[in-house]
Amino acid sequence: MAVNLLPPDPRTLAPVRGVELGVAMAGMRRTGRRDLLLVRLAPGSRVAAVFTQNRFCAAPVTVAKRHLASAGVGVRALLVNTGNANAGTGADGIARARLCCERVAAALGCEAQQVLPFSTGVIMEPLPVERIAGGIPACVDDLREDNWAAAAEAIMTTDTVPKAGARSLALDGRPVNVAGIAKGAGMIRPGMATMLGFVATDAAVAPDALDRLVREIADQTFNCISVDGDTSTNDAFVLIATGHAGNTPVAIGSAAYARLRDALAGVAAVLAQAIVRDGEGATKFITVRVEGGASRDECRSVAYAIAHSPLVKTAFFASDPNLGRLLAAIGNAGIRDLDADRVSLYLDDVLVAAGGGRHPAYREEDGQRVMRQAEINVRVLLGRGEARSTVWTCDLSHEYVTINAEYRS
Amino acid sequence: MAVNLLPPDPRTLAPVRGVELGVAMAGMRRTGRRDLLLVRLAPGSRVAAVFTQNRFCAAPVTVAKRHLASAGVGVRALLVNTGNANAGTGADGIARARLCCERVAAALGCEAQQVLPFSTGVIMEPLPVERIAGGIPACVDDLREDNWAAAAEAIMTTDTVPKAGARSLALDGRPVNVAGIAKGAGMIRPGMATMLGFVATDAAVAPDALDRLVREIADQTFNCISVDGDTSTNDAFVLIATGHAGNTPVAIGSAAYARLRDALAGVAAVLAQAIVRDGEGATKFITVRVEGGASRDECRSVAYAIAHSPLVKTAFFASDPNLGRLLAAIGNAGIRDLDADRVSLYLDDVLVAAGGGRHPAYREEDGQRVMRQAEINVRVLLGRGEARSTVWTCDLSHEYVTINAEYRS
Repeated sequence: MAVNLLPPDPRTLAPVRGVELGVAMAGMRRTGRRDLLLVRLAPGSRVAAVFTQNRFCAAPVTVAKRHLASAGVGVRALLVNTGNANAGTGADGIARARLCCERVAAALGCEAQQVLPFSTGVIMEPLPVERIAGGIPACVDDLREDNWAAAAEAIMTTDTVPKAGARSLALDGRPVNVAGIAKGAGMIRPGMATMLGFVATDAAVAPDALDRLVREIADQTFNCISVDGDTSTNDAFVLIATGHAGNTPVAIGSAAYARLRDALAGVAAVLAQAIVRDGEGATKFITVRVEGGASRDECRSVAYAIAHSPLVKTAFFASDPNLGRLLAAIGNAGIRDLDADRVSLYLDDVLVAAGGGRHPAYREEDGQRVMRQAEINVRVLLGRGEARSTVWTCDLSHEYVTINAEYRS
Repeated sequence: MAVNLLPPDPRTLAPVRGVELGVAMAGMRRTGRRDLLLVRLAPGSRVAAVFTQNRFCAAPVTVAKRHLASAGVGVRALLVNTGNANAGTGADGIARARLCCERVAAALGCEAQQVLPFSTGVIMEPLPVERIAGGIPACVDDLREDNWAAAAEAIMTTDTVPKAGARSLALDGRPVNVAGIAKGAGMIRPGMATMLGFVATDAAVAPDALDRLVREIADQTFNCISVDGDTSTNDAFVLIATGHAGNTPVAIGSAAYARLRDALAGVAAVLAQAIVRDGEGATKFITVRVEGGASRDECRSVAYAIAHSPLVKTAFFASDPNLGRLLAAIGNAGIRDLDADRVSLYLDDVLVAAGGGRHPAYREEDGQRVMRQAEINVRVLLGRGEARSTVWTCDLSHEYVTINAEYRS
């Protein structure tokens, strides 16, 4: 059902020097599928990450935050399992996440604090540590730099299409590669990042610059999507810089910073949009642009009020230009002094509403034409200022209900 | 599909002296169904109301607010049409709503400002005033006090069951009757009131007491429900007191105030819950009680985070005790300093989670037993204080998507 989304072409996923990836079939929930990913980072790699703001955050999120704080520049490995989120599992979940790190550390010859654990899958069931431990040797055997496509596949859960992207640029005349993978299709309304996203570069980056990059990029990409408005317990977006390109470490405020940020954000945006295109049951990909707001926050509130309205989303599914639902959602976004008479609403190039109601020149067949498309742009002009914000979302279909009613069975 | 909801027994709907109701088939969207309601109030009746906070509020809401402010105790009639919400219609919508009031005023011999208009139905289409005007004479001919059941039917849109309730009590030794009707099944997350709710009593009530009653009751009943999290453009809850019972006018702080409030709130709660039971596609009626909060607002935030989560709602639809989704929703409610380890979660009498994860004694079959029921109690203990809040909601089914994908066709 994914909307205009193809699996990544492995030829476009150039290796990032210093990042090796290995996958295995650990039998987490089903046999015969890749469900475990090990990422080995060369010594000296720097890692920065942002995590979910859900207060029931998963055990691996807690452990990864602690290890990241204690290991600093010394992170040597990431372990990602699907099939079980290790969330809502209390102290026992923390112990199991740590045990996984210890097993990786033993296999790679590093400290457990140098390993970051990530889990995705069903919530509130004990993590099967023995299966994960059983899969680690096969991951180690499989470690190689040209393995991004397999890695993208190994972290899927309800995803129907693996998600990966890459870019290249030059810094100080040296070639720099960027590659990334992500997973997610439901429980998507990232508070800091998406379900799981990993982007790596072989550029050298100063530590404070990497910390700023991960926040700026998350805010522009993964924090601008929603499938169903539910923020996951396991969200994490991780940015890795191995430094193997040999450039001068990228510093905040430099021209190199802006260029690297554009490349990293480009990959992250492709991944974030891929998650929406593969949203559970999605048949339409919808870009909601809100302009003319007094602040970016209020533009984002309006965009999310549209993106989260089940009535708007079912109208998109039905290709029904029931556009009053869009006005109702805008009015419902919590802007107390919004003047409805100053709001304009466009569907692609069609001016639908202005002056508090339907535009005199609007014709239903024009709205219908846009609504039938698989890709739809909603544009709202608030008439209050200069701020703007964009959110990407999808429709709400029967398939969404089917997927989520049957997920565990 | 309504959950344990029968049409009201007309014998239980005792007349409220001073309130006459008349219905007609005006052919608003379909022929052959009652779609227009006129309510005539005896001189001296007092009316108080709360309306939607949606900034794209409908034209009749704007007009009703103005008329209520100018007419004061002099409201003589309410006109309610279904099939067209007259929302998102700009200045033309205001003019059409006023025209309807003028037609009623001419038919009843009062001023247009003494008429309150209410509309419900599709948004952003012009109100067919001529059809409404054509139906008014039939409404007038039909006016009588024992007509509450027909009135409940005449205001339905996607409702499958008419909603009405009644109570009786004595004040100053005089019999007092309370009766009410409501409509609503989708776009239900009242900000001040529900789609349309009208409750009347023949008690005499002081004006400031009636104003306070309408707010208190809305807050305890209509403001505690959600079907799909979308706040309508047309919400209105109206409280009418004709004074025909002949009691001493009920004053704030009196024993009579508390007793009348209980009777009015009892009817309003039945109506509010009926809206959820008849929620679009509903197969389950879910009561979410959140206790032990630091404030009522935070309890309500947690309750709504659960009530609005599509993942929680599809799990209820599937009778699947995928209870991690409940924990994720609680963690997602915006309480920054929530200690997940202190939260307990019950499904009816079954303790599901405590100490940050699944309770050791919890067995899947116990959760399954509760989830199979048509009526489910979710109880969350936050372990932070003494505040509490209750919200009523329903599940999210295929039928919801079907209804809203096909609403206009």
